[in-house]
Parts: sequence; structure tokens; C-alpha cells
Amino acid sequence: MNLIKTHKTFNGVTQFWSHPSKSTKTEMKFSTFIPENPTGAIIWLSGLTCNEENFITKAGAQKYLSEHNLMVICPDTSPRGLNLPGEHDAYDFGSGAGFYVNAETPGYKDHYKMYDYILDEIVTILKEEFKMTKVSIMGHSMGGHGALVLGLRNPNVFRSISAFSPIVHPSACPWGEKAFKGYLGENKEEWMKYDATELMKLGYKHDQKILIHQGTHDEFLTKELLTTDFIDACVAQEQDQEAVFCEEYDHSYYFISTFIEDHILHHKKYLS
Amino acid sequence: MNLIKTHKTFNGVTQFWSHPSKSTKTEMKFSTFIPENPTGAIIWLSGLTCNEENFITKAGAQKYLSEHNLMVICPDTSPRGLNLPGEHDAYDFGSGAGFYVNAETPGYKDHYKMYDYILDEIVTILKEEFKMTKVSIMGHSMGGHGALVLGLRNPNVFRSISAFSPIVHPSACPWGEKAFKGYLGENKEEWMKYDATELMKLGYKHDQKILIHQGTHDEFLTKELLTTDFIDACVAQEQDQEAVFCEEYDHSYYFISTFIEDHILHHKKYLS
Repeated sequence: MNLIKTHKTFNGVTQFWSHPSKSTKTEMKFSTFIPENPTGAIIWLSGLTCNEENFITKAGAQKYLSEHNLMVICPDTSPRGLNLPGEHDAYDFGSGAGFYVNAETPGYKDHYKMYDYILDEIVTILKEEFKMTKVSIMGHSMGGHGALVLGLRNPNVFRSISAFSPIVHPSACPWGEKAFKGYLGENKEEWMKYDATELMKLGYKHDQKILIHQGTHDEFLTKELLTTDFIDACVAQEQDQEAVFCEEYDHSYYFISTFIEDHILHHKKYLS
Repeated sequence: MNLIKTHKTFNGVTQFWSHPSKSTKTEMKFSTFIPENPTGAIIWLSGLTCNEENFITKAGAQKYLSEHNLMVICPDTSPRGLNLPGEHDAYDFGSGAGFYVNAETPGYKDHYKMYDYILDEIVTILKEEFKMTKVSIMGHSMGGHGALVLGLRNPNVFRSISAFSPIVHPSACPWGEKAFKGYLGENKEEWMKYDATELMKLGYKHDQKILIHQGTHDEFLTKELLTTDFIDACVAQEQDQEAVFCEEYDHSYYFISTFIEDHILHHKKYLS
């Protein structure tokens, strides 16, 4: 691992790292905040167009992580430095838009293994490099989708799950359909493995309450996010969940910064 | 005034605005955060390379402004959309580097009137558009210099002054010498009007304590910022000041985010 930058922040350090990834076969970057005495770690998965910088610079999370002795790690959202067919043509596919799946389509299958990257490499880095064995997961939008899918499929790895404005039903929305077709191909059976609502319907549950915050003025709510599809599936499966609809808030980091303390307190219950 | 964007944030709104400026003869932008019931406003002046976005996205100030009922307004750091000789050649002169002076050199004197822009236009906008008559001023680096100079020369306009990592003695450091020569010319008498340390030596004081936070690991501390020059001048003039040297912190917004609550509480004393 290569330490790129260190900034003292509250009682800890904000840091930027790079390392060679065996999942993506590229150099990957992530950021961390490590308070004085961390008792556990939260993985933050970012949304479309983001990289390892967005959360750590904009969410204002360091104050609360510092107060509650929790570490955060923020991976990049896709491999970088490649030039696959169509990889850089749109904001919602390819670079900056890995969707936390293991791709199976030509070209992408050799590098876009973001599901494995988070589950195997980031979790291992937390354990071996940062000595963090208690791990939870959260994310925003595409990263909220990633947090739900990774958390539901691996409840023994991730102690708790939360999401801001998650894409909860990707196989039923334009962003998800485009990404899944591009990364997974036409076989929709494959898509189900990466669809939180479909996984919930199939009985993939988590022991702890799943916390979701969703702005009512989010421009993507009705077309892309489909929040209630997941809530309905949770209710049907008796999965404990708390979906907080926040009046007037949008899809931005201004919204996230307002409610990030609630998510950190949620995960703290399972990480301390 | 043209409202560009609005984002609900904590109990208020983060907004981005543009308006035609009579000082710069260009369209200027600024951002604001307005809590539910503001009692006063703080002007934030940003540093080199910044614009109206940096503070409002990175400082994490909205939480505290919301709690303490204070508005913030963050102007851009220079005129934009021009093409003056040398204006876009370096990060520390021209665009993004207005230094809050009234330029007197050819070309620049027609537009780079950032001192007047803040003192006349931003203060007037606060009063007339936002109904804020109680105003304080703070800033970072080049903007810390701007806050000190504007505050010391106009103690009846600005109720209190604070700064992060300010350039306190620009006529004695490379950043300031380059900027002042480019905007003000060779006559160093002119430079004194925009040099906080020299103004303090001349007896320009403020009734309230001036608060400064400075990181000890700031790479610009000894060559560009020269913090102790201003402290010495304050001591000689019996100006109340509190300069907090923060061990291990650098020049970044991670540092600012750690201590911004202290500055908001400082100004609150004079704005409530």
C-alpha cells in the first residue's frame, strides 16, 4: 500500500492510499479517516461519477467518527486507467460507475470485479493493514445499492447496513438496466444476484435493522431509486428496517452531511 | 440576483447565486447558507485557487451555522470570464487570486476591484437582499488576509474578525509581493493599505478580539504566512488577539473543518 496524503483532522487523520488490486488488475485508490482509538470500521460506497474523494471531503463525517471512535474507508467506484469499449462515454456506465458487481461481459470481466474488490480486498485491508475486524457498510445512490447487496449477501461479514438514497431495485430502473446489461449481459437471472429488492424477496436478510435516509425532493426518487419497492419487500420478509423520508432534501452531499451522524450512531451500536 | 441552485441542508438552505457586479464589471458568483432564523451574517473569504464552492462544500460549517442561527456568504475570489495579460498563467495571480485589493495596474484596474466588491456590494447584498445588518468577516489564507485587512480598515462595518492560516504580512512574502506588484504596481506605499501587519503597526485596530487558527504543519507557515509578524504587531498595539497554533494540522480544509465551530462561536458573540 502506498500512502499518498495525510491530513490531521479532528482527533485523527484523513489519508489517501493506492494499492495494486488483484480483483481489478489495476492500481486502486481509497481514502480513510482513522480516529485516535478506532473500535471498528465502516465501508462507504460512493455513487455515480464519484471517486475516493467525495465522501471524505464533503460529508462532514470526521467530526462524528472522531467522537465515536470509528474508522471509515472509502474505495473508488471503478477501476481507472483502462480504455475498454464504451468505458468513458457516459456518466452512468464504465469509469466512475462500477455498480459493485462482478462483470461478465467481454473486456469488463477482466477488470470490473468491484463486488470482489470490496468483499475480499477492502475487507482484508481493513483486517490486515488497519487491524479492524468489526466492519459495517453504507453508501449513497449506486453505493447505497452496493451496500445493500454486499450486506444482504454477506451478513456475517458486515455487522450492519445503511444507505442514503439507494438504488434499491436496479433491475427495474434505467440506471440499473443499462449497467447490468453492460456488465452482466442479457440473462436477467444473473441480475438478481445484485438487486437488493429481489434478494430480499428471495429471503436474503440481515439480523440488524437496515437504516435508509431518502430525500423527498430527490430528482431520482421515482424513476431510478424506487425506495418503496425495497421497503415493501422488507415488510413482506419481516426484515427490520427504518426508512426515513426527509422533507425537502435532495440527492446531494448537503443532504448526506445533514444526516450522516444518524448513520454513524446506527453502525456504532454494532461496532463498539 | 439569479438563484442558480438550492439544497436543503440541516435546518436551512445552501444556495448558489450570480449577479452583475459594478465593481468588477463582470457577472460574479457567491454561495450562501441561510438557517431557519438567522440573526447575523459572516462573510467567508476563500484562498488561492478557490471559488464560491470550496467553503460551502468542504468546511462542514452548516451544522454549526444552523445551531447558532447565523448565515454565511462566500464570494468568489476574483472576477471571471476575462482574458487580461497574464491573468490565467499562474495559480497565485489573476483568476482565483484577487487578493481582495483594488487593482491599479493596466487592465486589472478595470475589473480587479475585489476590496470594493466585498465592502460595498457583498455587504449591501447582505443588508438589502438578505436583511442582515449585523456582519462579521473571516477567511482562509489569502482570504484570511482579506478578512484582516477589510476588518481592520472597517471596524464599524465588521463586528468581528477571524482567520485560518492567514497571509498576515503580504508585503514581506513571495505570494504577496507578486500579487501586490501585479495589482498595485511598484509603489510600496500603496501596498501598506492592504497589509494587515503594517496596518496594525499604523494603529488600525478592532474593538473585539481577533481569532486566528494556524496549523503547525502548514507547509506555507514560515515562508508565506508569517503569523508571528501580526501577533507581534498586535501585542505592540495592545490589540486583543488569540492565535491558536494547532499541532500537526496543515493548510487544508480538513484543518478548517476541525476548528470552524470555534470561529462560528466567536462571531456569534457579536452577531446575536
